[in-house]
Amino acid sequence: MRVVLAVGAHPDDIELGCAGALALHKLNGDKVYLLVLTKGEASGNIDIREKECREAAAILGVDDLFFGGLEDTRVHDGRETIDIIEKIVDAVDPDIIYAPTCKDTHQDHRNTGHSAQSAARRCKMILLYEGASTQRNFVPQVFVDITRTFDVKKKATRVFGSQLNNDRGGYSSAVEAVEGLAKYRGYQAGLEVAEAFEVGRFIFEV
Amino acid sequence: MRVVLAVGAHPDDIELGCAGALALHKLNGDKVYLLVLTKGEASGNIDIREKECREAAAILGVDDLFFGGLEDTRVHDGRETIDIIEKIVDAVDPDIIYAPTCKDTHQDHRNTGHSAQSAARRCKMILLYEGASTQRNFVPQVFVDITRTFDVKKKATRVFGSQLNNDRGGYSSAVEAVEGLAKYRGYQAGLEVAEAFEVGRFIFEV
Amino acid sequence: MRVVLAVGAHPDDIELGCAGALALHKLNGDKVYLLVLTKGEASGNIDIREKECREAAAILGVDDLFFGGLEDTRVHDGRETIDIIEKIVDAVDPDIIYAPTCKDTHQDHRNTGHSAQSAARRCKMILLYEGASTQRNFVPQVFVDITRTFDVKKKATRVFGSQLNNDRGGYSSAVEAVEGLAKYRGYQAGLEVAEAFEVGRFIFEV
Amino acid sequence: MRVVLAVGAHPDDIELGCAGALALHKLNGDKVYLLVLTKGEASGNIDIREKECREAAAILGVDDLFFGGLEDTRVHDGRETIDIIEKIVDAVDPDIIYAPTCKDTHQDHRNTGHSAQSAARRCKMILLYEGASTQRNFVPQVFVDITRTFDVKKKATRVFGSQLNNDRGGYSSAVEAVEGLAKYRGYQAGLEVAEAFEVGRFIFEV
Amino acid sequence: MRVVLAVGAHPDDIELGCAGALALHKLNGDKVYLLVLTKGEASGNIDIREKECREAAAILGVDDLFFGGLEDTRVHDGRETIDIIEKIVDAVDPDIIYAPTCKDTHQDHRNTGHSAQSAARRCKMILLYEGASTQRNFVPQVFVDITRTFDVKKKATRVFGSQLNNDRGGYSSAVEAVEGLAKYRGYQAGLEVAEAFEVGRFIFEV
Amino acid sequence: MRVVLAVGAHPDDIELGCAGALALHKLNGDKVYLLVLTKGEASGNIDIREKECREAAAILGVDDLFFGGLEDTRVHDGRETIDIIEKIVDAVDPDIIYAPTCKDTHQDHRNTGHSAQSAARRCKMILLYEGASTQRNFVPQVFVDITRTFDVKKKATRVFGSQLNNDRGGYSSAVEAVEGLAKYRGYQAGLEVAEAFEVGRFIFEV
Repeated sequence: MRVVLAVGAHPDDIELGCAGALALHKLNGDKVYLLVLTKGEASGNIDIREKECREAAAILGVDDLFFGGLEDTRVHDGRETIDIIEKIVDAVDPDIIYAPTCKDTHQDHRNTGHSAQSAARRCKMILLYEGASTQRNFVPQVFVDITRTFDVKKKATRVFGSQLNNDRGGYSSAVEAVEGLAKYRGYQAGLEVAEAFEVGRFIFEV
Repeated sequence: MRVVLAVGAHPDDIELGCAGALALHKLNGDKVYLLVLTKGEASGNIDIREKECREAAAILGVDDLFFGGLEDTRVHDGRETIDIIEKIVDAVDPDIIYAPTCKDTHQDHRNTGHSAQSAARRCKMILLYEGASTQRNFVPQVFVDITRTFDVKKKATRVFGSQLNNDRGGYSSAVEAVEGLAKYRGYQAGLEVAEAFEVGRFIFEV
Repeated sequence: MRVVLAVGAHPDDIELGCAGALALHKLNGDKVYLLVLTKGEASGNIDIREKECREAAAILGVDDLFFGGLEDTRVHDGRETIDIIEKIVDAVDPDIIYAPTCKDTHQDHRNTGHSAQSAARRCKMILLYEGASTQRNFVPQVFVDITRTFDVKKKATRVFGSQLNNDRGGYSSAVEAVEGLAKYRGYQAGLEVAEAFEVGRFIFEV
Repeated sequence: MRVVLAVGAHPDDIELGCAGALALHKLNGDKVYLLVLTKGEASGNIDIREKECREAAAILGVDDLFFGGLEDTRVHDGRETIDIIEKIVDAVDPDIIYAPTCKDTHQDHRNTGHSAQSAARRCKMILLYEGASTQRNFVPQVFVDITRTFDVKKKATRVFGSQLNNDRGGYSSAVEAVEGLAKYRGYQAGLEVAEAFEVGRFIFEV
Repeated sequence: MRVVLAVGAHPDDIELGCAGALALHKLNGDKVYLLVLTKGEASGNIDIREKECREAAAILGVDDLFFGGLEDTRVHDGRETIDIIEKIVDAVDPDIIYAPTCKDTHQDHRNTGHSAQSAARRCKMILLYEGASTQRNFVPQVFVDITRTFDVKKKATRVFGSQLNNDRGGYSSAVEAVEGLAKYRGYQAGLEVAEAFEVGRFIFEV
Repeated sequence: MRVVLAVGAHPDDIELGCAGALALHKLNGDKVYLLVLTKGEASGNIDIREKECREAAAILGVDDLFFGGLEDTRVHDGRETIDIIEKIVDAVDPDIIYAPTCKDTHQDHRNTGHSAQSAARRCKMILLYEGASTQRNFVPQVFVDITRTFDVKKKATRVFGSQLNNDRGGYSSAVEAVEGLAKYRGYQAGLEVAEAFEVGRFIFEV
């Protein structure tokens, strides 16, 4: 039994990035905790967004969901953000941390990624997930086979459906994009569907 | 009216990588030529593979299809390969060249990419496409909106359907992967479906 | 007719980085807007610097020049800077945005680059220009042939002549360096003189 | 029980790069095979080098040691090398392949790395080890804790002691360097001693 | 006789990163100054840490030690930090500046690295040292042979012994890691023991 | 007094890349040797090209000029090329080697760069120069101030004037491009004119 902590800047970041892996952890009996630094009030009603976030957490069956209390679009990389993450790291003592990649055009995402790695400096495994605004130079090294949990991931991400398209207008359905991404990452790894991660830190237990 | 040359190592490489862009070029009245360096005899019957290749070329409506006469799995980066490509470059005088990225685990692909760039050193635009064995450090800079030609691309790639899965076992349908990839690249670019390219050389005509 | 927005941290940044491309846009009948985040008061008299900036804008024939009202040497990457740029993005609705590369030793430049990319997240084309303090790992992907507008660029950059050498002592004339750079970038691209850009986002309209 | 294949260009490459991990695999009951492409005749007596190689294999307790029959300093990246590796891959059907990184100043090493990745294209896990002539831009992503097998590694590498210093004159003892490296990689990973790998392909089994 | 300035975020950063090079500078009759931005109060008693810092400076025989007066864990990249460094740069007019690499998981280290490079923009030589929390993508270009000063470096770093292991638990002795690192960097450069640096700026005086 | 060896694939490669640095070495009393692997017969009369090459060598005042006897456009990376370079390395025992960067679209250049680094594996300083077909991802780390020898460099490169423009049509005068490049590299380094190099290996003698 391992303890897993996933950190995100806004409701839906974690689900888009690593819901498949988190659902696998739950299938394996691991403890899974979520820390969402803001409630995403800059792109929607704060109560609705919190409710969606709790609903997705329930679908994934996570053990607890924490909010960081930071202001949306104003997540900084520094002592304040690090302290919030460290407090949860100290509380749940995770074996594995999932955090957003720093290669992202959204300042909240890259600052969350930087601060999470600072806060997780004693943790043995840190995997950095990709998302809607990830830059093209994201180069994943580690893949997770999410064939068994792809349906759960789709269900969890659909909870936020109305939000996902905010930033990219009506050009593409985020849900379809997430499915396309999973198939592409699977293709790269010789799997059906996959999530892909950059390595923050990874100890391979031979 | 521009002249376009697409170079591939094997039948199906070009279609997977840039069939959507080539079909767009045809819609725009450009001349499109294909140069396939081998007939892919290492993973199939040479006559069937040539026939499939001609069929796909017909679907895309290209102006001519050339074969380079090299031996499958033995495409080298050097004078011989460069000469073959240069001969076609001299003959059709392309404005734009599409070639495989060198970031690929298949030796034929990376050698084709290197030699194409040597042969195309006087050409103003070289775009490097991704494919089934492209490495994870492929970082595209230029995207093409293939919404209008996505159906043609799917049709052209399905011609090779039996071949595509050779390398990756039965884990994923290549056709589905190509569709997933197009949606993901579209997502990155704020489009519905897209093809993505690394820049070999790109002059932006303001 | 396209709409173009160029963003810079200080008077003269835009001219050094992309005046040749902007002048081409004007030759082509595009609308061109400039947004300069500070008035560069840290290295000169604020009134003189504003006057020079307006003079250069007139030489380029731009449609409007906006100032962001930030304090020189204190441009941060975050909500405040993003908001200022977004306001102009919303007002002019640009097809193409030119912004400084983030690979720069000057904190104002890299923060302007980051914030501009956040603010421009819905824009289809973002080109990142190089400048006097750009780091050596700037790797341009897109080149613009500025042969027709090189004289205008030289004229526009000479407006700021007294400022340019502030940082590097008397070692080199900035005007000569800009000319050398244009010739070198031209050489790389097989052109006479060129400006070179990293791609923030680039949709190639086949 | 997993099957592991380690590929090297010369006797001692594998031991320097991943003897600690291989010894761990043996502790865990995995099958471990070695494929050494040449007998290293360019820097020593061929019989002595083969004998040392067999002695090190015995110390590690590997299940079989194969030689590729290629000529030292003339390992090419191409069909011939790929075929030799593929033959062993087909024979032992490995779950994990260890091969040299391509970022190496020694042509045999980089060609072995390229060809091994081509030959292993169906394998789910490929880890690329570092060695004596690895370039400075080797950036490991995965670490293995070799605290339990460090003594075995030291014993296995000492078998080749006379060879190791050939290339770098008398400046440093290779044995001490290997120990220093293990401590440094351990330090990076928060471990006592470690081996570090670039990821060729890595499926993380959550 | 040259003037050297080494900048660090906390007591012990400079010693771990470049004490060997600094001791060489003193052997050669150069002037050496240290600027430590904080007193490291976040991980120890401020008076003890200052005392250790002065003791290490005395072992290295530096000409003066300055403290920047910033708060530990809250070093920002921006005007305030740059001004503090610039003041010392103006005072001692260094030929060579040593500063921490920006590739670091500790926010103070990366911000010190960024600000030092901004402050040192007129200096001809800037070398960026590695440390305990440096990221794996640190790629050194320049090596210094510290064979003659390795003992002094060990003595200077041992002054901080109780601090060094704070962050990585009891997994590894920092002193041993520093020795391992020096041997590994030496091995890379064909030397006995070495310190390795990324180049911020380097003019090679032929 | 140091011994310097510059390696090039064709007549004019060395002059374009590092003639300024070589002339400085001669001013300082160093021994300078040139090794040109081919006589460039693919783009000109072999006798004229050899004569030009000897003329440029005389202008630089080098101590000896060796030809490698390889065939133009067919320089491979491998034992044969390495042996040719090693023979000269053994003969002159250089302290510093200048060789072409491997980031080049011309196969002869990149193969020369790879083989030179293999052949020079025991040499303490290897600097990799840029040239006419160098790729855009060349990132120099070390600069040489060629203010004192710029006129000599211009004179030496003009010897090959008729050749230089072969590859890039009439778009730009190579001589002007070399001057532009020197000014740009100077600008980057805070110098008047400079040559820039990637580091193959660099021991900084503090």
